[in-house]
Amino acid sequence: MLPEKLTIHGLTALYRAGDASPVTVIEEVLHRLANNPDPAAWISTVPPETLRDRAAELAKGGYDPSRPLWGIPFAVKDNIDAAGLPTTAACPAFAYDPADDAHVVARLTAAGAILVGKTNLDQFATGLNGTRSPYGAPRCVFDGDYISGGSSSGSAVAVARGQVAFALGTDTAGSGRVPAAFNNLVGIKPTKGLLSAAGVVPACRSQDCVTVLAHCVADGELVRRLAEGFDAADPFSRPAQARPLRLEGFRFGVLSGAEKVFLGDDAAEALYDAAVANMTALGGIPVPFDYAPLRECAHLLYGGPWVAERLAAIEEFVEVQADAMDPTVRAIIQGAAGKSAIEAFVGQYALAFYAQTIAGMWADLDLLLLPTTPTIYTLSDMLADPVRLNSNLGRYTNFVNLLDCAAVAVPAGFRPNGLPFGVTLVGPAFTDNDLANIGDRLHAKSSPVTYPLKIVPPPTYLPILVVGAHLTGMPLNTELTGVGGILLGAVRTAPDYRFYALAGTVPPKPGLIRDPGFRGPGILAEEWALPPSAFAAFVARIPAPLGVGKVALSDGRQVTGFLCEGHALAGATEITGFGGWRAYRASL
Amino acid sequence: MLPEKLTIHGLTALYRAGDASPVTVIEEVLHRLANNPDPAAWISTVPPETLRDRAAELAKGGYDPSRPLWGIPFAVKDNIDAAGLPTTAACPAFAYDPADDAHVVARLTAAGAILVGKTNLDQFATGLNGTRSPYGAPRCVFDGDYISGGSSSGSAVAVARGQVAFALGTDTAGSGRVPAAFNNLVGIKPTKGLLSAAGVVPACRSQDCVTVLAHCVADGELVRRLAEGFDAADPFSRPAQARPLRLEGFRFGVLSGAEKVFLGDDAAEALYDAAVANMTALGGIPVPFDYAPLRECAHLLYGGPWVAERLAAIEEFVEVQADAMDPTVRAIIQGAAGKSAIEAFVGQYALAFYAQTIAGMWADLDLLLLPTTPTIYTLSDMLADPVRLNSNLGRYTNFVNLLDCAAVAVPAGFRPNGLPFGVTLVGPAFTDNDLANIGDRLHAKSSPVTYPLKIVPPPTYLPILVVGAHLTGMPLNTELTGVGGILLGAVRTAPDYRFYALAGTVPPKPGLIRDPGFRGPGILAEEWALPPSAFAAFVARIPAPLGVGKVALSDGRQVTGFLCEGHALAGATEITGFGGWRAYRASL
Repeated sequence: MLPEKLTIHGLTALYRAGDASPVTVIEEVLHRLANNPDPAAWISTVPPETLRDRAAELAKGGYDPSRPLWGIPFAVKDNIDAAGLPTTAACPAFAYDPADDAHVVARLTAAGAILVGKTNLDQFATGLNGTRSPYGAPRCVFDGDYISGGSSSGSAVAVARGQVAFALGTDTAGSGRVPAAFNNLVGIKPTKGLLSAAGVVPACRSQDCVTVLAHCVADGELVRRLAEGFDAADPFSRPAQARPLRLEGFRFGVLSGAEKVFLGDDAAEALYDAAVANMTALGGIPVPFDYAPLRECAHLLYGGPWVAERLAAIEEFVEVQADAMDPTVRAIIQGAAGKSAIEAFVGQYALAFYAQTIAGMWADLDLLLLPTTPTIYTLSDMLADPVRLNSNLGRYTNFVNLLDCAAVAVPAGFRPNGLPFGVTLVGPAFTDNDLANIGDRLHAKSSPVTYPLKIVPPPTYLPILVVGAHLTGMPLNTELTGVGGILLGAVRTAPDYRFYALAGTVPPKPGLIRDPGFRGPGILAEEWALPPSAFAAFVARIPAPLGVGKVALSDGRQVTGFLCEGHALAGATEITGFGGWRAYRASL
Repeated sequence: MLPEKLTIHGLTALYRAGDASPVTVIEEVLHRLANNPDPAAWISTVPPETLRDRAAELAKGGYDPSRPLWGIPFAVKDNIDAAGLPTTAACPAFAYDPADDAHVVARLTAAGAILVGKTNLDQFATGLNGTRSPYGAPRCVFDGDYISGGSSSGSAVAVARGQVAFALGTDTAGSGRVPAAFNNLVGIKPTKGLLSAAGVVPACRSQDCVTVLAHCVADGELVRRLAEGFDAADPFSRPAQARPLRLEGFRFGVLSGAEKVFLGDDAAEALYDAAVANMTALGGIPVPFDYAPLRECAHLLYGGPWVAERLAAIEEFVEVQADAMDPTVRAIIQGAAGKSAIEAFVGQYALAFYAQTIAGMWADLDLLLLPTTPTIYTLSDMLADPVRLNSNLGRYTNFVNLLDCAAVAVPAGFRPNGLPFGVTLVGPAFTDNDLANIGDRLHAKSSPVTYPLKIVPPPTYLPILVVGAHLTGMPLNTELTGVGGILLGAVRTAPDYRFYALAGTVPPKPGLIRDPGFRGPGILAEEWALPPSAFAAFVARIPAPLGVGKVALSDGRQVTGFLCEGHALAGATEITGFGGWRAYRASL
């Protein structure tokens, strides 16, 4: 009955139509879990009767459109607290029973989501490969010889296998992006601090992010926006800010020269090149840039003092039960023991240097398009060389949190051997919304079925109505698109407006003037939204005799839009009958 | 001939008028240095012949208005490099001969300033009292029994004694503010990273700021703005951002209850209360707030891991020549030796907590008004209890850099015993401009002679012309003042505008309409400047039939300003003859 892949959009459509209920969905989830080909994905699950009760309770009231995740099954990585299930961080000796849900889990269940269970991970979220857990190694869902990626290994596999519609991961070095790439999923890695880490076992506390794994950007973004919000219980929590990207004509950095490294995985390189071509086809401008400083910065995460944070997080546990840890994880974390405060600050100085370097890059680039990983490994190769190959996997991910970037990992096609490949869009902090917008369109280029993300401007954006040379395709349209403007749609003015072709304007411009009592056709217009500073600059640049005021629309709304001073009608031609500038221009 | 206090404004006025030349000023400076009552203020000075040559070279070309510091003598703290003089950091064994000027010194000399020499400091800028130097202890210029404050002790004394017009200091814990308070000076402590620290011996590198000591805010601000600028050679350098404060109706936090501590210095408390009253008289709203979390945060600077930065800065030197250090400074810096990277990160977590706390405060408060210090000490008291009393001096200053604040310390009157008292305005990062604006007005309240700061809007601000209810004193004026608007001045429109009192508007509003060829009196208006986001919100809120377009002024400029839709003249009364809204309203 249910599709193989569970999606939020898909399930919600079924719920709205009355074609499914949380009760039937949960029965299907239980069925899939009972016939799970990769049990290593899960560490614990909610008891079936508890799940059935929760589903029945939701179903009793009928579909509730006010709860955007109503009836949606999800999983959380087992370093995130959920009351009723132990938190193990994939280390049984470390396990504890949390009294409360983590902040993010509470937000999602409040939105109607149904928690199914806790998923496996590289112990203490230390790893990018998915093999470092006493609960077993989840496998790539496309080929069981290959690793699932980590550390959010189980979350990725549970979503990819259709056992839940989405899952929460965490990400310090790439843990929410690498397993997305290896299982053909979207991985939303928000700006640090947007999602509270209260109730999450720290890996590297100053750098940790809660992430979302889902089948499409629209699903992942919905969850991200519901999960985010300032939380005073997390000292690294930050309120959201709007930092828009250009959605057309954006400049995206691409690997080049000696820094374009795929470790011999030519199929991956070909897919990366295809992704660059797809981004270009979306209206982006590829710009080769020097990845070297970011690669150097990436080394700080394990080669610098930040590993001390991993020890700080579990110091008491390590002191008494180090022998209960995965040997590779233990070796990494105990490597922090001798590091001094001086080394910690010297590391901060190095990071400050790289932060300046990338700030300089952002002056020229809107975002970066990077391979999520250069390649993928088999389980046996990984186990034979666990530290070096793990480091290879983090080549293009490790710098991202250190340098305060947002990232969206999206699928980018399949190698000839059937293994998926993924790319990651990386932008400066608080570009999450527009990285998702662009990532969604990129995903659609390589995937036959996605759910298009509705582009919603940030709440700070201000609407502006254009009626002439700023319309889509007209000469001044780039004054809107070039500053992050978002087209909200075509609209028509109220009937009491007259429209004129002004004399002597370059490029040709119309004038819109209200004439109360007049009944014309109304004038076709476009409503755009601009970031406040762009809105201000746009208005300040408007030359006489044009200006802005309130324009009444046929739908009864009033929006800020172009008007014209009355004295400019001298020599102008009335063109009201054309009903709009496009029709008039076409008539010439 | 020259006034006792050298000021930039004063000297520049003499230069402009031809009443002085750099040659005569430098002779006077040399005379004052030769008769210096407190030689401990200086560690080294530029040789007299070099100074005379520099002055003569400047004088040769005549006064150069393009160089805002033309002929202005200044000093720099001896932890800041100046080519030709050794940098000692007040530790002779550490001294080196820098090849280049520090970035900030080069900027100031390029603006025409004349470097006179290097000033004494608490060794390695570790101290707030001015007694920790083998070059002696400079004294408070008002009473030689008292300390000068530190660590920028010599810079303050050299300015206060009229040997230079301004001096650079540095400030990590309060080193640029405390000596300002003790010598009746202004201390500008910019937002971290605005002034490059390249060429400065680090004290606590992630927290260090270069500061300006001067007699008035206008002088200090001029220097700050000339010295600031992004410098890739300093990894903590940051480009400036505009964060405006309300200049009227601002809410300023004041000490209250158990946190209002002056350690028995009742005269200081009375002067603080007077400063609060003065700020209130300027249009501010005093808001008692809880200082406790900031006091706790202040302890991190010496009680937490940051002291490791002091050791990191001079580690090799300390290893071989610790016995050459001031014993108190050595004990403080060597206290860092055992600190671990874990402690460093745990300190960062604590700081993140306090950063959130103060971010919450800024939601309610525009700025804080704090005593610069609770009290002042005699030299003998200080030497008897050097660590505890120094800690007392930093009570209200230590948190400022840790929590990424800007600060402006201004004089606030004298105690009955003739010792000066100072207060500090503290705001979030990048509020430097408006802290100075408010601080300048506060200084004028307690000082008979200051040089008023010309309020210059940041370059990103956008002008807007108002003609009616937004004029100063009119009902909607707070829509401008409440969002950081700055009044640029009164202007008049070109003569071809007609002016109408619109019917049925609340509050009453006029309409301005251009009528080419008409010759009227022109309409009086006010030109304001708004931050871009405030400009956008302001325009977006304007109700029909009003709007904005370009308005031609009598001076030939066109500025964005209020216009009116023509249809609104139905029922309106023409009031062009009044020449403005204020005259019309007064006539009613």
